[in-house]
Amino acid sequence: MASTSSLTLSQSLFFNKLTFTKPSSYSLSIPTNHGFSSKSSLSSSSSLRRRTITASAAETVTETTTLVDKSVNSIRFLSIDAVEKANSGHPGLPMGCAPMGHILYDEVMKYNPKNPKWFNRDRFVLSAGHGCMLQYALLHLAGYDSVKEEDLKEFRQWGSKTPGHPENFETPGVEVTTGPLGQGIANAVGLALAEKHLAARFNKPDNEIIDHYTYAILGDGCQMEGIANEACSLAGHWGLGKLIAFYDDNHISIDGDTGIAFTESVDSRFEGLGWHVIWVKNGNNGYDDIRAAIKEAKAVKDKPTLIKVTTTIGFGSPNKANSYSVHGSALGAKEVDATRKNLEWPHEPFQVPEEVKKHWSRHIPEGAALETEWNAKFAEYEKKYKDDAAVLKSIITGELPAGWEKELPTYTPESPADATRNLSQHNLNALAKVLPGLLGGSADLASSNMTLLKTFGNFQKDTPEERNVRFGVREHGMGAICNGIALHSPGLIPYCATFFVFTDYMRGAIRLSALSEAGVIYVMTHDSIGLGEDGPTHQPIEHLASFRAMPNILMLRPADGNETAGAYRVAVLNRKRPSILALSRQKLPNLPGTSIEGVEKGGYTISDNSSGNKPDVILIGTGSELEIAAKAADDLRKEGKAVRVVSFVSWELFDDQSDAYKESVLPASVSARVSIEAGSTFGWAKIVGSKGKAIGIDGFGASAPAGRIYKEFGITKEAVIAAAKELL
Amino acid sequence: MASTSSLTLSQSLFFNKLTFTKPSSYSLSIPTNHGFSSKSSLSSSSSLRRRTITASAAETVTETTTLVDKSVNSIRFLSIDAVEKANSGHPGLPMGCAPMGHILYDEVMKYNPKNPKWFNRDRFVLSAGHGCMLQYALLHLAGYDSVKEEDLKEFRQWGSKTPGHPENFETPGVEVTTGPLGQGIANAVGLALAEKHLAARFNKPDNEIIDHYTYAILGDGCQMEGIANEACSLAGHWGLGKLIAFYDDNHISIDGDTGIAFTESVDSRFEGLGWHVIWVKNGNNGYDDIRAAIKEAKAVKDKPTLIKVTTTIGFGSPNKANSYSVHGSALGAKEVDATRKNLEWPHEPFQVPEEVKKHWSRHIPEGAALETEWNAKFAEYEKKYKDDAAVLKSIITGELPAGWEKELPTYTPESPADATRNLSQHNLNALAKVLPGLLGGSADLASSNMTLLKTFGNFQKDTPEERNVRFGVREHGMGAICNGIALHSPGLIPYCATFFVFTDYMRGAIRLSALSEAGVIYVMTHDSIGLGEDGPTHQPIEHLASFRAMPNILMLRPADGNETAGAYRVAVLNRKRPSILALSRQKLPNLPGTSIEGVEKGGYTISDNSSGNKPDVILIGTGSELEIAAKAADDLRKEGKAVRVVSFVSWELFDDQSDAYKESVLPASVSARVSIEAGSTFGWAKIVGSKGKAIGIDGFGASAPAGRIYKEFGITKEAVIAAAKELL
Repeated sequence: MASTSSLTLSQSLFFNKLTFTKPSSYSLSIPTNHGFSSKSSLSSSSSLRRRTITASAAETVTETTTLVDKSVNSIRFLSIDAVEKANSGHPGLPMGCAPMGHILYDEVMKYNPKNPKWFNRDRFVLSAGHGCMLQYALLHLAGYDSVKEEDLKEFRQWGSKTPGHPENFETPGVEVTTGPLGQGIANAVGLALAEKHLAARFNKPDNEIIDHYTYAILGDGCQMEGIANEACSLAGHWGLGKLIAFYDDNHISIDGDTGIAFTESVDSRFEGLGWHVIWVKNGNNGYDDIRAAIKEAKAVKDKPTLIKVTTTIGFGSPNKANSYSVHGSALGAKEVDATRKNLEWPHEPFQVPEEVKKHWSRHIPEGAALETEWNAKFAEYEKKYKDDAAVLKSIITGELPAGWEKELPTYTPESPADATRNLSQHNLNALAKVLPGLLGGSADLASSNMTLLKTFGNFQKDTPEERNVRFGVREHGMGAICNGIALHSPGLIPYCATFFVFTDYMRGAIRLSALSEAGVIYVMTHDSIGLGEDGPTHQPIEHLASFRAMPNILMLRPADGNETAGAYRVAVLNRKRPSILALSRQKLPNLPGTSIEGVEKGGYTISDNSSGNKPDVILIGTGSELEIAAKAADDLRKEGKAVRVVSFVSWELFDDQSDAYKESVLPASVSARVSIEAGSTFGWAKIVGSKGKAIGIDGFGASAPAGRIYKEFGITKEAVIAAAKELL
Repeated sequence: MASTSSLTLSQSLFFNKLTFTKPSSYSLSIPTNHGFSSKSSLSSSSSLRRRTITASAAETVTETTTLVDKSVNSIRFLSIDAVEKANSGHPGLPMGCAPMGHILYDEVMKYNPKNPKWFNRDRFVLSAGHGCMLQYALLHLAGYDSVKEEDLKEFRQWGSKTPGHPENFETPGVEVTTGPLGQGIANAVGLALAEKHLAARFNKPDNEIIDHYTYAILGDGCQMEGIANEACSLAGHWGLGKLIAFYDDNHISIDGDTGIAFTESVDSRFEGLGWHVIWVKNGNNGYDDIRAAIKEAKAVKDKPTLIKVTTTIGFGSPNKANSYSVHGSALGAKEVDATRKNLEWPHEPFQVPEEVKKHWSRHIPEGAALETEWNAKFAEYEKKYKDDAAVLKSIITGELPAGWEKELPTYTPESPADATRNLSQHNLNALAKVLPGLLGGSADLASSNMTLLKTFGNFQKDTPEERNVRFGVREHGMGAICNGIALHSPGLIPYCATFFVFTDYMRGAIRLSALSEAGVIYVMTHDSIGLGEDGPTHQPIEHLASFRAMPNILMLRPADGNETAGAYRVAVLNRKRPSILALSRQKLPNLPGTSIEGVEKGGYTISDNSSGNKPDVILIGTGSELEIAAKAADDLRKEGKAVRVVSFVSWELFDDQSDAYKESVLPASVSARVSIEAGSTFGWAKIVGSKGKAIGIDGFGASAPAGRIYKEFGITKEAVIAAAKELL
């Protein structure tokens, strides 16, 4: 950043932003002695490693009465007061991280408080989500409508916009939902991936229309979680230079000093992961050090940066700082008073000093100006690059191109039998042509999950414009990265894949897709004992049931070509409800009667030789077992029975249908019902009723060729016929 | 290891073992030029880091026709042939790792093939479980009865002892069940923890009765998994010096060259994690380098060691080596032939050369001698340290001390209300007095999960005799480490804890507890919306259902003191079926009618004012909602209704009861049934029947005080009464 000619857009905006600031107040926060060396040393990789930045003591002393201090203490006390009023919450982190929070939201980040969804905003993720009062205090000071003073006073109360952990669906300004540790930093990797990808696709030499940073704060807890290591390994591999993560190094977790369980060198690990690492020794009031670290991080463009900021948890509390007692409980009236005295804070609870309010008030006009400026830039872009602008717009708005569904392949019973994992690949490739925001990949099983987009290359450090993402064997990180991608832009549609059984590794991320309304498409193949020889460690049993029980997620198990296309139609349309597609390893015939429309209803009749909605028996199957139900029906019909075959591809979608529709498929008067599914029977009693029979597998699978396992476990046409006859 | 006087027991045994070897054959494998420096350099920490060991080219050439080569190639071809016959499996890893496998099983490890469960054996874990033919070939050569030639020929077939991934419950000699990547190395950490713990508790200056190593082989896939990083961070923290892990660094995973997704420096990361790291550059035939690395690893007693062994996947296959195509498919007849030619292997499929057989045949007498020697040592130990010997014996055999159940606390309705998480802690502390093998802890939530054993200190590097394990925020690693502990010795009873919702992070490990019959006790607190303000990210909803659907696991949700004690009774007794205890954050009253015996039946009547097994309505509750059911019953009875209240603490245990018992609790003639549980209603239709009503929560929770959430979500006495009246 030595010469203005090489400024990137964000840097220009950063400087532009400075000009909006009243010189009198802003001079307080411009570092005059930044305490780190010249550009030449930055370019030497060895000197870049573990750079330690420490301001002189004198410097910090002179600043103690500054406006910045007051702002930082405002953040601390808003957090203290809100937790105290709720008598619940986590004051320790906000008290320790207030300085970095202040610098990010007041000095560094680009955002528009009155339009929290402004596309080119910098993204901020509080991975240590329990410290959410930090973020609420910052959003409040910055002027977001979502966090007014009354919202702070309703912290952790029913219906408030300030829940116990940051929730993107409750609080505009919160990008992703955090709290479960490690998820946020992985989401941040996804957000940074999205920025790098879109910038590479859409930026032009004369118009860098996409240019923003992703900032995250993570704590010791996040650092211990495996998901964080997975995601950060990928961030290093991908060289996500615009990802800047602050590690709140406070040495305290719930069980006390981290020395009891966490003595690794995080620095060495992150260097091993390919990150640039900086250590700010005094995160409590070393403002200039934090500023210098951010500047340095921005200068390192080919690596993500971890800024380890050593802080004191509960900074300012005379008796509780630096102890676990300040982590997750209100300070208590007495200690709040003591902290007020200690930090010389004469203000009432929730009171922000006028000069601090005034100082922060510039963010509303500044943010509006940033957006206006960007809109003008986009107008120029649109003029010059019409087609690209249209595509980018669709990614920004999430509007699907007209007629996109026409690309979905359709099949007839004459179409060759195929595995639904292969059919899935046809759909993905067809959709990639018309959905510009579709991108994704597999956790090192691309050739098994069949997830490669054939007309695209690999998203890599030097080819970020491509759309095949190679996640390596990192299921949990993959899911959370996809959540970040989905929540970056409404038009980004991430998909990710592994064997269905390994959803066990990524369930934390999948649940957060559901909770945070991130429309990720989970492409889960090898969905039953049908995978054969790999055996019980690889054969899902309880997984269908386990996701049917999870709120706000669509568990889809298509049976053939049309149903696979239908599952993709549903998945693409449900942008706020993630989908899991359970797909077969083995070939399946295309069955008469299946349809895309049927899938949309969740359960529907694919064949029926009864009349008057009164079949003798209803056979219900899903996925690879629908074929078995259909064959059993053929045999039973030959014996003169009136048999209905129902595909039950998605329980959730069926639940959404009208009572009349449900009755038309599963009439209450017909209690002779047999279900067949190569998985746990748990839950099926609701569908087949007290008198019906559910054929499934309630133990673990086995290692053998698939056909043999099906036979040994009784997942056969003969079993269906026998069960039906018992009920007739 | 410079002077014999400082030899540890294992080292003595190692040398003893050598004396059993015929000098003529063994001279081939004793390294004369070990290629690494003297002891003094080993003690310098900087020179210990990333030591690279490379044999000279001349050395390897002279060895090409040795017996070791033949043995190594026997392993390679047994693997090739078995995969070829099955036309399914993973030949690549065994072909690359055969040298380290040979050295471990033929030269280094202590075991007794005729008693795979001999207590003081070295443990071996193939974390890269897909390469299981390596382990089967080694067990076969070593003389284990579980893997005869006919078993190799039945690889991956129905009912064979050689399933598609290593399964401890199928194949004696296999310690743990692997395949899902990363689990095995975490299991190995648990095995090594168990050894270190038991050695510290039982070894005497004159009798080191416990002294064995844990070896593991992990691949690139394991290295990418977050669980591996979690467990290895703990292994470094704990200084598990007798854990030696081989990293099969072959640069190939299923998606091809690992360069597409995995470019981190594993060495730096492991150094950061506190491991000693050695690099063997030529793992394909640098036998002496591997031997030297093991020797060096053993000399480093305060750190676990990672030996990075660079190998060629599919070594020997002229056209497929070093490519993903050899990872997970049979080579094909043509390439098998080409490989035979290339490695100059004239033998028929499954044929082991006589000299190799003869060479390996010593392991049967040697193993028997090792065990005999150890038994003599134990006899001496028993003579001198009678009490310790008795305790150790119970840990080795798994026999529970007589009358242990008497320690379980009991309660009356007059006992003060308490949270079941607190009651759980009473049980844990009571049991720790009588169960010498009970040890465990929490993932950084000890003071929330209430899992501290008050009479014990922390298991740490320098206090390994203690029983409180501090896992840090590493749920997945924690579960897998506990699996390793449980499978180390039948009498070790590990428990581990986090918030119930975070079972999502560790589900992969929990499923392997169930599959591999590891009787881990999962202490899962904060089991519903009752946790309150932390909000939906922390509130389990679908979790009870998701575990009820999982095979071979006991999902227990006790309602009060007696039920918590009952849950512990069940959990301790079920050593081959892991238990999950869902426990409340909030206080619950002790209810009349609850009992330990009731819990053992899974579902039972706690109160009933009906006669003739014909109540007007049955109210069914679990955990914290049993109280609500009981209160609703009180009100309904006041209105003259005959009401039965049933506690449904464990569905699985109820399923195990006789039909007559089930009918006595839930008579078929009574269709008026109402269930209440603060979780998903998924699955309850089976219990309440088509006409019954299930009260629960099928969306996500919310952040607010618990009482308010219960009310807003209708988990109330009033809702139960209203539902009951609708049915009456």
